[in-house]
Amino acid sequence: MFFASDNGSGAAPEVISALTRANEGYARSYGADPIMARVKTLVRQLFEAPEAEVYLVATGTAANSLSIALLSPPWSAIFAHVDAHAAMDECGAPEFFSGGAKMIPVAGAHGKMTPDTLKAALARIGEAGVHGVQRGMLTVTNVTEAGTVYTPAEIAALTAVAKSRNLPSHLDGARFANALVATGATPAEMTWKAGIDVLSLGGTKNGCLGVEAVVLFDPTKAWEFELRRKRAGHLFSKHRYLSAQMEAYLTEGLWLRLATQANAMGALLVQGLAQVPGASLLHPAPANMLFPLWPIGTNDRALSRGAIYYPMQGPEGVDHGRLVASWSTTGEDVDALLTALKP
Amino acid sequence: MFFASDNGSGAAPEVISALTRANEGYARSYGADPIMARVKTLVRQLFEAPEAEVYLVATGTAANSLSIALLSPPWSAIFAHVDAHAAMDECGAPEFFSGGAKMIPVAGAHGKMTPDTLKAALARIGEAGVHGVQRGMLTVTNVTEAGTVYTPAEIAALTAVAKSRNLPSHLDGARFANALVATGATPAEMTWKAGIDVLSLGGTKNGCLGVEAVVLFDPTKAWEFELRRKRAGHLFSKHRYLSAQMEAYLTEGLWLRLATQANAMGALLVQGLAQVPGASLLHPAPANMLFPLWPIGTNDRALSRGAIYYPMQGPEGVDHGRLVASWSTTGEDVDALLTALKP
Amino acid sequence: MFFASDNGSGAAPEVISALTRANEGYARSYGADPIMARVKTLVRQLFEAPEAEVYLVATGTAANSLSIALLSPPWSAIFAHVDAHAAMDECGAPEFFSGGAKMIPVAGAHGKMTPDTLKAALARIGEAGVHGVQRGMLTVTNVTEAGTVYTPAEIAALTAVAKSRNLPSHLDGARFANALVATGATPAEMTWKAGIDVLSLGGTKNGCLGVEAVVLFDPTKAWEFELRRKRAGHLFSKHRYLSAQMEAYLTEGLWLRLATQANAMGALLVQGLAQVPGASLLHPAPANMLFPLWPIGTNDRALSRGAIYYPMQGPEGVDHGRLVASWSTTGEDVDALLTALKP
Amino acid sequence: MFFASDNGSGAAPEVISALTRANEGYARSYGADPIMARVKTLVRQLFEAPEAEVYLVATGTAANSLSIALLSPPWSAIFAHVDAHAAMDECGAPEFFSGGAKMIPVAGAHGKMTPDTLKAALARIGEAGVHGVQRGMLTVTNVTEAGTVYTPAEIAALTAVAKSRNLPSHLDGARFANALVATGATPAEMTWKAGIDVLSLGGTKNGCLGVEAVVLFDPTKAWEFELRRKRAGHLFSKHRYLSAQMEAYLTEGLWLRLATQANAMGALLVQGLAQVPGASLLHPAPANMLFPLWPIGTNDRALSRGAIYYPMQGPEGVDHGRLVASWSTTGEDVDALLTALKP
Repeated sequence: MFFASDNGSGAAPEVISALTRANEGYARSYGADPIMARVKTLVRQLFEAPEAEVYLVATGTAANSLSIALLSPPWSAIFAHVDAHAAMDECGAPEFFSGGAKMIPVAGAHGKMTPDTLKAALARIGEAGVHGVQRGMLTVTNVTEAGTVYTPAEIAALTAVAKSRNLPSHLDGARFANALVATGATPAEMTWKAGIDVLSLGGTKNGCLGVEAVVLFDPTKAWEFELRRKRAGHLFSKHRYLSAQMEAYLTEGLWLRLATQANAMGALLVQGLAQVPGASLLHPAPANMLFPLWPIGTNDRALSRGAIYYPMQGPEGVDHGRLVASWSTTGEDVDALLTALKP
Repeated sequence: MFFASDNGSGAAPEVISALTRANEGYARSYGADPIMARVKTLVRQLFEAPEAEVYLVATGTAANSLSIALLSPPWSAIFAHVDAHAAMDECGAPEFFSGGAKMIPVAGAHGKMTPDTLKAALARIGEAGVHGVQRGMLTVTNVTEAGTVYTPAEIAALTAVAKSRNLPSHLDGARFANALVATGATPAEMTWKAGIDVLSLGGTKNGCLGVEAVVLFDPTKAWEFELRRKRAGHLFSKHRYLSAQMEAYLTEGLWLRLATQANAMGALLVQGLAQVPGASLLHPAPANMLFPLWPIGTNDRALSRGAIYYPMQGPEGVDHGRLVASWSTTGEDVDALLTALKP
Repeated sequence: MFFASDNGSGAAPEVISALTRANEGYARSYGADPIMARVKTLVRQLFEAPEAEVYLVATGTAANSLSIALLSPPWSAIFAHVDAHAAMDECGAPEFFSGGAKMIPVAGAHGKMTPDTLKAALARIGEAGVHGVQRGMLTVTNVTEAGTVYTPAEIAALTAVAKSRNLPSHLDGARFANALVATGATPAEMTWKAGIDVLSLGGTKNGCLGVEAVVLFDPTKAWEFELRRKRAGHLFSKHRYLSAQMEAYLTEGLWLRLATQANAMGALLVQGLAQVPGASLLHPAPANMLFPLWPIGTNDRALSRGAIYYPMQGPEGVDHGRLVASWSTTGEDVDALLTALKP
Repeated sequence: MFFASDNGSGAAPEVISALTRANEGYARSYGADPIMARVKTLVRQLFEAPEAEVYLVATGTAANSLSIALLSPPWSAIFAHVDAHAAMDECGAPEFFSGGAKMIPVAGAHGKMTPDTLKAALARIGEAGVHGVQRGMLTVTNVTEAGTVYTPAEIAALTAVAKSRNLPSHLDGARFANALVATGATPAEMTWKAGIDVLSLGGTKNGCLGVEAVVLFDPTKAWEFELRRKRAGHLFSKHRYLSAQMEAYLTEGLWLRLATQANAMGALLVQGLAQVPGASLLHPAPANMLFPLWPIGTNDRALSRGAIYYPMQGPEGVDHGRLVASWSTTGEDVDALLTALKP
């Protein structure tokens, strides 16, 4: 009954086993290991992007902040949804890595910017000449913080607005595989074909121990990225252990299989909640994260019965929570939770 | 015959096995895992420091830079040996994390500062009132970049100079266990009893996959450290995998056993090199790292025979190299290298 | 007919004359000039703050950013009105000086925060533990960017909210004298008696060439301020020329006389606009800055007739502008403008 | 008898008078004043550089740090003489403005780098791949901190070394006019013809109140410079007062006349010291700054007789001091000082 976060789950057996295999013998350090060469090939194939450069780090905050800093001069504005992880949950990491760029909150229902809300934010910034920060970049999160999902077309509509101002676009894909599964899009469709320049490709939440790839579809700034990664302490000496995780993750569709299971359990939760009297969803939940509203008392009851999830502050008069399914969530887990929720 | 670096070695079986065990079930994220609680207890016991705060990160650069930034205002001077890793091999990470503090090179033979060279550096900085940077902190590396080792008394002599100016002291212990084994000192003797305020305790090079502890002997700034770690992207969500490595590393003396093996192989190399005609050592080599000088042609010969190590730029007229033994180096490896070196 | 900004006006004769007098002979540099000693005494007397420390810089952005950086760790949130100069018109200077702190926009009609809008912003930030930026400080602008004025009681109500969270408060007083004149408050009532910890006291816009004082009512961080000022290139070597401006400005009530004239001309504009058919004010205008709305075509007509002011983007269907009176504005200027505006 | 620094002198009458003239009426702010347009034309003519961009700030630290930051990514090394003002006397301003670039001390007698010492410093930095900071730029000071002067040929020899590594070069010309006078070089010969890309052109020490020009011989990064200047609080609203100083300074050779007087008084001091028993010079003194050594007791005697200069720490067994002449130093001042020095 663990639904607190997908980062509370363990690593998939395939990943652990790859790690153990990678432990044999000696290996060149700092990314010169042979596994990393294979990872790069894999990513290029899966994303149909033969020019892309690929780097690994261990945390999502590192992947996002290094990507954002690469695209944002210190005097620029970073446009992100008002609730984006990078804006609210990384303790100012984008500001730190970029040397003080400014995150501009973009509005939008259900955790999603729209071309109109983005245009409104763009109109407010960058018209003050030298007196204001300059428009810098767009960062989109998919799956969003609200558990909703952008389609490739929706992403393309946002990046088109950015491109009309000559701004590059980043995708925070901490739950990228879940977004692919939820939409049926290919990796290329969800990224560069939709105008994304840099991707944070998450592995940690979806069955790895701690690994995220940064994919630069335009490799022009690759060396600068390497310097930034090193300077921030995010270049691993025993890099093979990052490589091995990512290789296993991307091999034979493991990443999609794990995300399929997580999303399926999300869907089962949605179905089940429909049977819980008085329960509803604050946002649509097409992937593995749900924000239910339910009658007052539900949180106390469920948590006291051993359910593990975050009770949230929500509208008056109801209880609110966040449920996250992961690759290791089972149908039994879902059933147990639903039982715990019911009076 | 891999002597390029101890970071080319794998992880010890005990560490891999701990990682696998830690993979069971769900765990609270971000350091709230139960293994981390045990790690903290272990460190406090081993260091006889019941008040110490303990944090884990994945790289040595992160451990050093976060520690240094904690002790150095942006307008301050960081005193370090001219060849220190933090000064020369971290792409300016201390400057980045501290917001632009200034590393002041301190001279000293064989990679070691002395009280006199430190005093000379201190005298040059901090006398300019508001016009110059202010004296900030001391950072000592043990084992040094030259493969030499400070005794606790030598460290205490340096920190005493620092304390006479009210400056805190940091120990970069990327090879801390090797230094302990080489000197026979206890963890407490090498650190807080010798005036060290913050320790970077390395695990990665000595049998882990990627984990370093930061030990704050004075916990006053613990919360600030946590904020800095998060903001720099160095707080792991699936933190249990860092905890598990460190727990295994510190349990039943594994760290010292591994370092003992590495140092013993270092000693075997020293012994063996005495038999190589024309070979000598640039620095004393009491731990696991040697900087040999040998006749011109030796590097070409050995490397072409499959030896793996760094040929270095050295004095004219001789070949030069760096050899590093690790926990996994065997007597056979040493023999093979010595054979490869000989004409 | 120059109403573009009060920074388009020249310096008052008393200030120019003080500058010329200060030019005699040699003087100690970097703030050790005897005039600065008198300035410090003057400020302490005028503000009834015998402990206060006083520093001079040449621009408002410098005064604000150094003050804000003094009160804001890099991982903190700075609460400011959504339209505050520091938030919108300083090209990210607070972020630069603070090392990446985050400005949090606080809502409020007519350029003014209220205790409720401040509480709402505070509630949104700082609840995420280590994952979010920490609540840092409050900065209030008086006169506001909308030309409105906070009373001391209104400021006290805001700083009380800040103090309930242990947050310090800064006042951006680029037009401080205008705010004093508009409210009849004493300098002490408007600042430390209302809970302000640090003041940016503007001279430039109100009859000086370029000088602003930073007043630290609590001198604990005075030395840190001096280091920050030097490090940012804002410590003047020939400091006497800053001192002389500020001494003249604060002597015999010059600052209040100049602001009285500017505000009187503002009031005359308000009166006169009441006679312009179809004109109204977007915000109350108790000081020297007005934001009029008037029929479409008014801007074209007035500007083509030689009026100088900023046409602004405003609501659909009307023209909009910003008018700023200064110490050197005359009744004839106002009359000429009103004539130019009329059909 | 004021020889403490040229920044203790006042402003030349021509400059004060220009300031007074500039005070008439209203002027566009932030550099859009008509005087600034004339300053730009003047600089372009005097430097034979029709493409150059010209910006004004009020302090030398601002001019240097903004220039350096423009040329130095945060992960780069700035090569400067070990005693350079930017390295030792600006409280880490280059590190602050650049976001943590690293100043690398370059050796050299009498305050001057040589091609060989620069090559030695370059060889030590930038060979560590991603692990070390990258070579960034060269900054040369003329007149040097030791009071010596580089000829254009000497500067060209240094910038040639820099250019062989594709590094840009900056000239800190806080005493640029004194260097021109001492060498007879033209502005162009001392700068872009000698390989200088960006110049800090000092006015403050040589008869202005507080103004320095930054000259970008290659205007490619002009807009970035403007953003950096604003963001650092160094863009003046009442900019005309900077413009007026610089216009007067560069008009009809005032800058060279003032420097000629300062250098002549320096030469008179050199001559006079030759008559002081036991006095010698630590460095050659071709401009307006001398570092004399003289018998113990001389400092006490001269200072007690009212001489004003900096006693310095020097070699054992002698007294040491720094004497700086300025545009306002007279022959009587020099005579009085020499009398005060003699037993």
